[in-house]
Amino acid sequence: MMKLEMICTGEEVLSGQIVDTNAAWFASTMMEHGIEIQRRVTVGDRLEDLIAVFQERSLHADVILVNGGLGPTSDDMSAEAMAKAKGESLVENREWRQHLEDWFTRNNREMPVSNLKQAMLPESAVMVDNPVGTACGFRVKLNRAWLFFTPGVPFELKHMVKEQFIPFIREEFDLDAKVALKKLLTIGHGESSLADKIEPLELPEGITIGYRSSMPHIEIKIFARGEKAIALLPRVTGHIKMVLGTAVVAEDKATLAEEIHTKLLNSGLTLSVAESCTGGMITSQLVDFPGSSSYLQHGLVTYSNESKVRVLGVNPATLDDHGAVSIPTVEEMAKGARAILDSDFALATSGIAGPDGGTEEKPVGTVAIALATRSGVYSQMIKLPRRSRDLVRSLSAAVAYDMLRRELLTEAVIVDYQSIGRFSK
Amino acid sequence: MMKLEMICTGEEVLSGQIVDTNAAWFASTMMEHGIEIQRRVTVGDRLEDLIAVFQERSLHADVILVNGGLGPTSDDMSAEAMAKAKGESLVENREWRQHLEDWFTRNNREMPVSNLKQAMLPESAVMVDNPVGTACGFRVKLNRAWLFFTPGVPFELKHMVKEQFIPFIREEFDLDAKVALKKLLTIGHGESSLADKIEPLELPEGITIGYRSSMPHIEIKIFARGEKAIALLPRVTGHIKMVLGTAVVAEDKATLAEEIHTKLLNSGLTLSVAESCTGGMITSQLVDFPGSSSYLQHGLVTYSNESKVRVLGVNPATLDDHGAVSIPTVEEMAKGARAILDSDFALATSGIAGPDGGTEEKPVGTVAIALATRSGVYSQMIKLPRRSRDLVRSLSAAVAYDMLRRELLTEAVIVDYQSIGRFSK
Repeated sequence: MMKLEMICTGEEVLSGQIVDTNAAWFASTMMEHGIEIQRRVTVGDRLEDLIAVFQERSLHADVILVNGGLGPTSDDMSAEAMAKAKGESLVENREWRQHLEDWFTRNNREMPVSNLKQAMLPESAVMVDNPVGTACGFRVKLNRAWLFFTPGVPFELKHMVKEQFIPFIREEFDLDAKVALKKLLTIGHGESSLADKIEPLELPEGITIGYRSSMPHIEIKIFARGEKAIALLPRVTGHIKMVLGTAVVAEDKATLAEEIHTKLLNSGLTLSVAESCTGGMITSQLVDFPGSSSYLQHGLVTYSNESKVRVLGVNPATLDDHGAVSIPTVEEMAKGARAILDSDFALATSGIAGPDGGTEEKPVGTVAIALATRSGVYSQMIKLPRRSRDLVRSLSAAVAYDMLRRELLTEAVIVDYQSIGRFSK
Repeated sequence: MMKLEMICTGEEVLSGQIVDTNAAWFASTMMEHGIEIQRRVTVGDRLEDLIAVFQERSLHADVILVNGGLGPTSDDMSAEAMAKAKGESLVENREWRQHLEDWFTRNNREMPVSNLKQAMLPESAVMVDNPVGTACGFRVKLNRAWLFFTPGVPFELKHMVKEQFIPFIREEFDLDAKVALKKLLTIGHGESSLADKIEPLELPEGITIGYRSSMPHIEIKIFARGEKAIALLPRVTGHIKMVLGTAVVAEDKATLAEEIHTKLLNSGLTLSVAESCTGGMITSQLVDFPGSSSYLQHGLVTYSNESKVRVLGVNPATLDDHGAVSIPTVEEMAKGARAILDSDFALATSGIAGPDGGTEEKPVGTVAIALATRSGVYSQMIKLPRRSRDLVRSLSAAVAYDMLRRELLTEAVIVDYQSIGRFSK
């Protein structure tokens, strides 16, 4: 099997001044082609570090994608380091020098002398074209590995990987790309509790399971490698969904908001939202998607009691008798938000996100949630003790979305989730 | 000099399914303490890869922070790999087993058997406490290096680095901690335009400048190393602020929302928000902070025209004559939101976030913003062409916050930002 590694260069990546999105993009693009990266090394702009890492990793990998350090400034030294690592000199690549001169002429600019450096490649390098920038790519064979040098500018990297790198490794290593992936989105279960349920299953050969925590969700990834495993993927997925029950809330979606958005978009159905403790989170996550205006009518973040009365028409006596965090209040909030524009659905939340504001009867993490429809209202009051303010809010939003999702599927709206408690009515 | 490296583990980080924000956070936190990372290696969940990287890097570094792989599932194998790398066995740490049992008892849950694994540490390991999770940290000496193992959950990592790791390296390597840092938050300028203004300044010895892009903000970090430089830091900061003018919107705050929250908290002043294109972002960013209920009365995300009329009292004729994205509409939205609860201030936004919905007259990126006060209303219509939907929304929220910030300082509410255009009224 071909061993692929990545070397990321640049002080700003190593020092955390920028998050390395190139690395994540490259790895997930390779995954989609069925190729796993074995290791990624990130180094700064020090010549001796670069030489050392090229020499060292070229003993272990078959292909190494090197990203960054091809620019015109003094801290761009990938080509020089590669030449030194191989013990050869830098020579001017005529073709690229011509390309640079043409590029600057086309852009009506004079070429700074510093850009000439970008045409200097290690003697044994094979040039790799970059039609979208001034940094020339190249590849060099050292020890076991092909080192493939790419620019740090994201769209130049992407272009070069798609147009040059992938065809190159396909050809060079005769790759078989048969891989499939299914993602299940879950809420209300810890990673270990999900694993305890899944790990006893006997999975067919070629099928592996991964977990990714992205609170309030945990995503389960089912990888299938090879045609036989891919054919079995739907059956395995069905089995896992059965075992996990209400924990699974979406397939191949990143969040419940995306699932709701997809279901409501162009459905002709409309939604209103009244939020207290979730503070705009439910609304905001939907507005993130273009086209949400087709179904989302308004989201009313009625943080104060006065606003619940004035904007949503909650009865002041309800607030007095039951408090803002109560089933009667949140039901009136949902009904009020729905009635203003006669929406098909309205979601409402009211709770104590913390860290302060809890009482013995209603501690921090108590959240009332309601869904109003044209025919009635569903509500529950959940318990999320010992969660951070942010997690109380994001879990509450997830439960609210799930109530609506289940209503849209005409399933029971209120269900138990393993790690989420509930007050009896 | 102490050589610090980082090893990130986890298939989901290596494969790019998640961007490695832990790595960026750790590196920039170390930078703030005056310590540079030399190299970062990212490996997946394969035992032999982990063993190889521990053995190899322990020959080169003095301290290696290892992140991830301490969970209860079968793909968490950092402790096992470390034990194998050192040729010793895993033994149960009684103290941590007790901690786990107490943790689950306190949370009224039965401990899954899989969690027992989290108490198994390499024989020579020194346990490192994790008061905020079930993953036990530890450190092991191998060859030249101390390998320091930390959980992958971001807030557990952060807690352990601050409370345990930094004191440990301080003590072990006798580090000189004389470093100070000032952060300036900016909006409306590109990084190169900020650098063009700052780089001509002659900075005293020991003072260096860093930039961090966290859209819609760019943060400028002014590091001072040594007592002399620290003493000069206020003067240098003042000079840079003068040179940058309206670009600087806060000091030592991560976002403008945090600056507004700090100013309004317990001020006795109240705020209402009416959002259209920003879709709850302004409200939601404030609700993120505990205590925001002391000033935030409500945030009305009036996405549809009907909602602007019914909830905010916008005149239908205004919408007909000028459209939803217009100065008159956004002014009525702000005045309406303020009037409902007689708030001191109200912010309103209405714009075209894209990718669709633009016209020749009002292209994607056109956003009207208003601030209503007890004495009047300020408004402007800005142009944000060629920005993503998300950036149009976050820049609009930032400009709205800045209008309120400037009003609270009794400065001119509407000012020019270099990279943000504006329609003339």
